[in-house]
Amino acid sequence: MPQQMVHIACVQNAQPLADREDRTALNSAIRHAAALGAQLILLPELHQGPYFCQTEELAPFDDAEPVPGPTTAWLAAIAAELGVVIVGSVFERRAAGLYHNTAVVLDSDGRLAGVYRKMHIPDDPGFYEKFYFTPGDGPPQGPGFATVDTAVGRLGVLVCWDQWFPEAARLMALAGAELLLYPTAIGWDPDDSADEQARQLDAWITVQRSHAVANGLPVAACNRVGFEATPATAGTATGTGIRFWGNSFVCGPQGEMVARAGSDGEEVVAAVLDRGRSEQVRRIWPFLRDRRVDAYGDLLKRWRD
Amino acid sequence: MPQQMVHIACVQNAQPLADREDRTALNSAIRHAAALGAQLILLPELHQGPYFCQTEELAPFDDAEPVPGPTTAWLAAIAAELGVVIVGSVFERRAAGLYHNTAVVLDSDGRLAGVYRKMHIPDDPGFYEKFYFTPGDGPPQGPGFATVDTAVGRLGVLVCWDQWFPEAARLMALAGAELLLYPTAIGWDPDDSADEQARQLDAWITVQRSHAVANGLPVAACNRVGFEATPATAGTATGTGIRFWGNSFVCGPQGEMVARAGSDGEEVVAAVLDRGRSEQVRRIWPFLRDRRVDAYGDLLKRWRD
Repeated sequence: MPQQMVHIACVQNAQPLADREDRTALNSAIRHAAALGAQLILLPELHQGPYFCQTEELAPFDDAEPVPGPTTAWLAAIAAELGVVIVGSVFERRAAGLYHNTAVVLDSDGRLAGVYRKMHIPDDPGFYEKFYFTPGDGPPQGPGFATVDTAVGRLGVLVCWDQWFPEAARLMALAGAELLLYPTAIGWDPDDSADEQARQLDAWITVQRSHAVANGLPVAACNRVGFEATPATAGTATGTGIRFWGNSFVCGPQGEMVARAGSDGEEVVAAVLDRGRSEQVRRIWPFLRDRRVDAYGDLLKRWRD
Repeated sequence: MPQQMVHIACVQNAQPLADREDRTALNSAIRHAAALGAQLILLPELHQGPYFCQTEELAPFDDAEPVPGPTTAWLAAIAAELGVVIVGSVFERRAAGLYHNTAVVLDSDGRLAGVYRKMHIPDDPGFYEKFYFTPGDGPPQGPGFATVDTAVGRLGVLVCWDQWFPEAARLMALAGAELLLYPTAIGWDPDDSADEQARQLDAWITVQRSHAVANGLPVAACNRVGFEATPATAGTATGTGIRFWGNSFVCGPQGEMVARAGSDGEEVVAAVLDRGRSEQVRRIWPFLRDRRVDAYGDLLKRWRD
């Protein structure tokens, strides 16, 4: 039976552009989070290297790995040593020509408790993920939006682009998720205006807080931070790239902000969540009681035409 | 063809506790909104009198009316006179023993362009709506989440409690709604702590702004304002009641706040919306492209057990 109070930490880190085998910085950050009392540690999306989806190249496929594989073995060892649950993110090679953007959940005994293959895949300038990743399979082919049971409770792990889809959050909540977690890699195009950048960050915070509100459960997002230049091989102008905006945060089941990082530096964002609050919040805001499942059929349509 | 720029106004009004036939205040506010340039005027939920759902009584049923009926006739006349679209709200008597909480849309020529019968009905202390209102019917019995075409574009009209359900907003967006509108009557229980009151208001704003973000369209909410005491017939302690929190607002298709009223007084909140912005926002945030309609089947379940 998980404890009532859950200490959570988001490790907001910047990407070393050198050796992706060098785990020194993340090891250190995970140990720091555990020393702060964290029982559940969330890492950013694809934390083992630079965000390679800025361009479409063949070379990054060399770095994909199986699950379980080297990254899960490393995270399993440190999870077991520290007795913490760790949610990481892997560029998964499932077969030749078949790759996923996969979140991995290591339980506090080091067991691989579950995986989640990103269901919504973006494809926008600087975020060419459809080139690299096959979307996760929904039933009957695969688990789709499935929760993972751990020592700290039932987790609804989603990944980055999923955060813009209320459907994903709702499906996890309906499967009994007690907490939604979003490993993320999102940032600004430095060419966008300051106003546009502000709207984007605010929208990103707002839509995720709304998942907490609509579902009566806490939400945590862990983003990377810092500027990553577009690889020169793309022949792009000097200085283009993504400025990952940090702002990793934890909010409670009314969407109330509990802890939030800044935009500019590496941080460990720690918070304590009371698992009993969802029970109370859902009593005063009984949205699950009133869903019109009889009238939602068209949610399964692309467009109501 | 509707114009590119749409001037919208929300009439945030307090309830006269006297004569519900007295339309002086609302007439004046609607004329004021039109004088400000509004082409689309949104009124609060059940604007023709006090919020009678604070208790369960038989007397309020006397005030229910057919649609079309006196309120739509009044709104039609003023809409046609001023050449504006008006979204109002009626306690609808459909038959003996069959009542709805119904939004009505009067087009700028005075025609009743459409109605929306509130689909999600709350029932909480002070908001005993399930006693009074039958939820709107979904297909095949009724239109469910259906949009209304007007001179200012295709409107997705929802009502109050609907605002907490991302499903409702999504269904309206998928039906081509260009704007989501929420006539509302929501407020604080004065016995709640200041912290709890702040969380509630913030959650209410956040979840509605998130509908704008997730669907790439503007959202407007028009709330009532001011304290309404619980009717004495309920035998409640003196001073109990609801303090309607105002804060009517208009936000753009990235969830950005465009105009917002305060918590304490009557106001007309006016804004200009560019109908072309949704087109642009949905290009940079192409969520509709990536919805996993193949994997959303369980949204039609009450619980995934």
